[in-house]
Amino acid sequence: MIEAEWIAVDWGTSHLRAWAMQDGAPLATGDSTKGMGRLAPDEFEPALLEVIGGWLKDGGTDVICCGMVGARQGWQEAPYSAVPTKPSELPPIFTVSQDPRISVHILPGLRQDNPADVMRGEETQIAGFIAQNPNWDGVLCLPGTHTKWAHVSAGEVVSFRTFMTGEMFALLSSQSVLRHSVTGDGWDNDAFLAAVSDAMSHPDRIAARLFSLRAEDLLHGQGAEVARATLSGLLVGAELSAARPFWLGQQVALIGSGATAPIYGAALKAQGVPTRTEDVARMTLAGLTAAYIRLKETE
Amino acid sequence: MIEAEWIAVDWGTSHLRAWAMQDGAPLATGDSTKGMGRLAPDEFEPALLEVIGGWLKDGGTDVICCGMVGARQGWQEAPYSAVPTKPSELPPIFTVSQDPRISVHILPGLRQDNPADVMRGEETQIAGFIAQNPNWDGVLCLPGTHTKWAHVSAGEVVSFRTFMTGEMFALLSSQSVLRHSVTGDGWDNDAFLAAVSDAMSHPDRIAARLFSLRAEDLLHGQGAEVARATLSGLLVGAELSAARPFWLGQQVALIGSGATAPIYGAALKAQGVPTRTEDVARMTLAGLTAAYIRLKETE
Repeated sequence: MIEAEWIAVDWGTSHLRAWAMQDGAPLATGDSTKGMGRLAPDEFEPALLEVIGGWLKDGGTDVICCGMVGARQGWQEAPYSAVPTKPSELPPIFTVSQDPRISVHILPGLRQDNPADVMRGEETQIAGFIAQNPNWDGVLCLPGTHTKWAHVSAGEVVSFRTFMTGEMFALLSSQSVLRHSVTGDGWDNDAFLAAVSDAMSHPDRIAARLFSLRAEDLLHGQGAEVARATLSGLLVGAELSAARPFWLGQQVALIGSGATAPIYGAALKAQGVPTRTEDVARMTLAGLTAAYIRLKETE
Repeated sequence: MIEAEWIAVDWGTSHLRAWAMQDGAPLATGDSTKGMGRLAPDEFEPALLEVIGGWLKDGGTDVICCGMVGARQGWQEAPYSAVPTKPSELPPIFTVSQDPRISVHILPGLRQDNPADVMRGEETQIAGFIAQNPNWDGVLCLPGTHTKWAHVSAGEVVSFRTFMTGEMFALLSSQSVLRHSVTGDGWDNDAFLAAVSDAMSHPDRIAARLFSLRAEDLLHGQGAEVARATLSGLLVGAELSAARPFWLGQQVALIGSGATAPIYGAALKAQGVPTRTEDVARMTLAGLTAAYIRLKETE
């Protein structure tokens, strides 16, 4: 039987992950596919209790949440904090719940007015990174469906920018005419690096190269592992080209998991930019833990 | 009761359109959603007869088809003809049918080995344009799901290039996170032209601008008509940037229909390139008619 001191929750559009915390470490984890995108306002609390119900004691257990759960269409809106801002000082929004065993707090996201941009969830990963690296100045890259680049200085997020690279790769590789030519999980790293380089040198040519991936397959039997890596390389190269003001001459840390962070690491290394990589879940948990400690200090 | 001299068929991935022809003009038209993408090899003939069955006399009526029906996964493969080639001289492939009332011929598509590219169906529109404009040298732009640019000289397609602009707009506007911000059919033409210009001047920045369409909506309530036109403008601008070797200093004719041809016309006009526009169905019919006349001459 698990009794949590407090509960950490990462609640995005498509899923929910929770950790039962005790003495700064997780006792147990749970997850569900009841992400914000599937839930009406009165369905959030039941969805949460399904995952964490077994960890609750009689008193009000603090539950600290980050992510899209705080969007306007979420459980309770946690208004964005405008950059420059310290992600370690974002005020959690107390959220009314029916069950007296929980006391729910939702962390706000970040906004940037010009160029317009927003994030929800990544700010907590960034706060976790800053908590573990308090004197670190540089750039964080958080690859994913919507990759974020953030310039961090003196504990503040100074500016950031979002790229839809992951979502575009998913749409083009699974739903466009290219899906026939990029099947499977094969990966030709030389083709990837060549495409990154070409896209960065000639971003004006990217649009012309996409359909060629289909035609190279039809005419010359180009392998799916080359086509898949080339498609990724063109999209990542376009992103690196546009994100140059972030990474050029900066120290860069990646916060990622799975196959995506190494891909960005390889592309940046080819531009002469060394990177280190931190795990997403570890950074999220570090950020939620820092928010919990701050909550306790201010109570 | 209609009795066709011959039958023209435009048979693409998603639909089939047929014309009962007599003395060079259509007596009737028919269509169906049984495109190549939905049919197994033995389903093509029944799908065709559903549409044209009422137009057949006892003798073998010639049926001239263009489009994806001639792909490897189609009714019968009509191998690509390599550019440079005269689309008016493509050899139709006789296709065996069970019903003795029809004599089916499928026109081949075009291939280009380097840069690799293919087309099926558009070559017949181009043949129709050339048949009606025999001394025309210049560039044809055929906007659509996969927009084609073709350099035409002395009746030949010299080179061509395909852009996935239409498919990318459809995917991004209906399935990505941007779908929330580009709803409806609204269109701000100034926003479109500004985005075209920006994408052409700074193709390296396009990747950074896409997610801003979502953020501008969330933060500043940007209207869907501005976001929709800007998304289109960024994608068309990227295409025009890559297609510059085609249109720069050339006379350009658009072969299009609906809303897309005027969009390309406006974007090219802003670059100082005047265009004329021909209707897709008219050019397709002209190309199929030219192929029928040639078939009769060689019989």
